[in-house]
Amino acid sequence: MIVAIPLYDRFTALDAIGPYEVLWRLPGVEVRFLGPEAGLVHADTTMLGIQATHAYEDVPRPEVVMVPGGTGTRALLEDERLLGWIRTAHEHSTWTTSVCTGSLLLGAAGVLDGLDATSHWAALDDLSRFGATPTSRRVVEQGKVITAAGVSSGIDMALTLAAKIAGEDEARAIQLRIEYDPEPPFDSGSTAKASPEVLELARTLSTRQLQGAGTAP
Amino acid sequence: MIVAIPLYDRFTALDAIGPYEVLWRLPGVEVRFLGPEAGLVHADTTMLGIQATHAYEDVPRPEVVMVPGGTGTRALLEDERLLGWIRTAHEHSTWTTSVCTGSLLLGAAGVLDGLDATSHWAALDDLSRFGATPTSRRVVEQGKVITAAGVSSGIDMALTLAAKIAGEDEARAIQLRIEYDPEPPFDSGSTAKASPEVLELARTLSTRQLQGAGTAP
Repeated sequence: MIVAIPLYDRFTALDAIGPYEVLWRLPGVEVRFLGPEAGLVHADTTMLGIQATHAYEDVPRPEVVMVPGGTGTRALLEDERLLGWIRTAHEHSTWTTSVCTGSLLLGAAGVLDGLDATSHWAALDDLSRFGATPTSRRVVEQGKVITAAGVSSGIDMALTLAAKIAGEDEARAIQLRIEYDPEPPFDSGSTAKASPEVLELARTLSTRQLQGAGTAP
Repeated sequence: MIVAIPLYDRFTALDAIGPYEVLWRLPGVEVRFLGPEAGLVHADTTMLGIQATHAYEDVPRPEVVMVPGGTGTRALLEDERLLGWIRTAHEHSTWTTSVCTGSLLLGAAGVLDGLDATSHWAALDDLSRFGATPTSRRVVEQGKVITAAGVSSGIDMALTLAAKIAGEDEARAIQLRIEYDPEPPFDSGSTAKASPEVLELARTLSTRQLQGAGTAP
């Protein structure tokens, strides 16, 4: 079973690596990182590059499509090359999934029309542009389409998917193997739990850092 | 402030990317991925390669040392090049940290002698070889040395560290930005919670998969 993770300039690394770290451990799974062409693709910061081993078109019919989000998402909402790949792959996939603003790419490809879907909290409302119903949950399942909320939620989504693919014991064993027994030191992981001050700081955070580091627009 | 993450053949990707995704968002932080030389370094599977932008020796005095674990750890426990880099960097660091079996490398470098420390549950007892006291907690702080348990625990460790570096509001805002409000679909993330059957499956899991994929020893 091939899990295809399409990367693009300024994807968010944890969106991609969380699901990778769960799904490669499934029996018979091969995870392939794709890019505009084979070679390095840079994450939100230029500090990190991940190797795409294949171009999108090299892997037209993966069983699992897993689209990460990132600051580069919005530049691709009319990119027919990537959107066309998603659309065609989805026609044949067993599962089509996303993390964070990856759901905007699914939406722009036409995959979410008429479905409930989630995304990063700061982008959730944008899903309605694509005929989807924004749904503030961490993992939203709609038939073979599964969307996850921001960044770290890809781990939860992938464990859910792992159980569907290989059974609950396999998923539980992977959870133990990656010791996913979270103990966040604070309780500010959702807009419902964060203080207004923290919410305001978070709204400006990525922009500030990316500008400060001089790495990405 | 420079955060140095030394990579090596067969590191575990989420060990490195969890802390990266938290720490790059701090004001004034630059994360540098190091390797034996600049270039691609492969994770546990050959499915994934991450770019080391510098060789270890190019970054001798980072403020933060963050050592990931991986199936390749044990081959390096007498590798004086990497251990020497860790030892020297630790002398000058503000914080020296690890995720998963990265603590075995800290131990082999002499950093953990006389300290409490944690590691992946399957490797925890090995810490005593290096004069450390194995401590089954998710994040263990001992002065400037912070060790984390298996794989996903690096996210919790990095949020703890982020608060020490930049204050709790910054850390909370990053938690919100990466939407770290975990909802694992199962409750098998620690050996205390998993069933005996799941524990046994997890013990054989990585080995089975790496052999099955034909990717790594």
